Amino acid sequence: MNNKEFISELARKLGYTNKDTSQLVSSIIGVMAQELQDGNNIAIQGFGTFEVKKKLERISINPATQQRMLIPPKLVLTYKPSVTLKEKFK
Amino acid sequence: MNNKEFISELARKLGYTNKDTSQLVSSIIGVMAQELQDGNNIAIQGFGTFEVKKKLERISINPATQQRMLIPPKLVLTYKPSVTLKEKFK
Repeated sequence: MNNKEFISELARKLGYTNKDTSQLVSSIIGVMAQELQDGNNIAIQGFGTFEVKKKLERISINPATQQRMLIPPKLVLTYKPSVTLKEKFK
Repeated sequence: MNNKEFISELARKLGYTNKDTSQLVSSIIGVMAQELQDGNNIAIQGFGTFEVKKKLERISINPATQQRMLIPPKLVLTYKPSVTLKEKFK
């Protein structure tokens, strides 16, 4: 299900226009992205938790050339499904 | 940021009441959960892709007792951040 299909399915369920639904989803994403950039994790009841984690610097070895490379540290966005949501997939 | 804080921040940005915002988020989660249960992945532009993956059956060995256990297959919900969102954490 791509973005367009998701927006129209959501619009149908909410009884909104596609345009309003699309704007709504963009606003929600905007709020979430800002909070995560500020370093705040976001726990959404019934869905799960989004967390920004720091991946440490590490050394990687090219298996072909045995050359060693330093991989710099980076921030990664992770998602952990809530227990209630996980239950739905059992 | 827990669920309550997220809802009130979102309500403030959208200009909705907390109650309406909470219902809205629940409806969105409901649509997403249903689609994922139906086996559909969901790609949300500017945010990322949610995908249900099948983890295969595997044998696990208890390191203390060397006892072998069969871990049954299961479905897991995964999330992959979009490139645009990942860029924001560089």
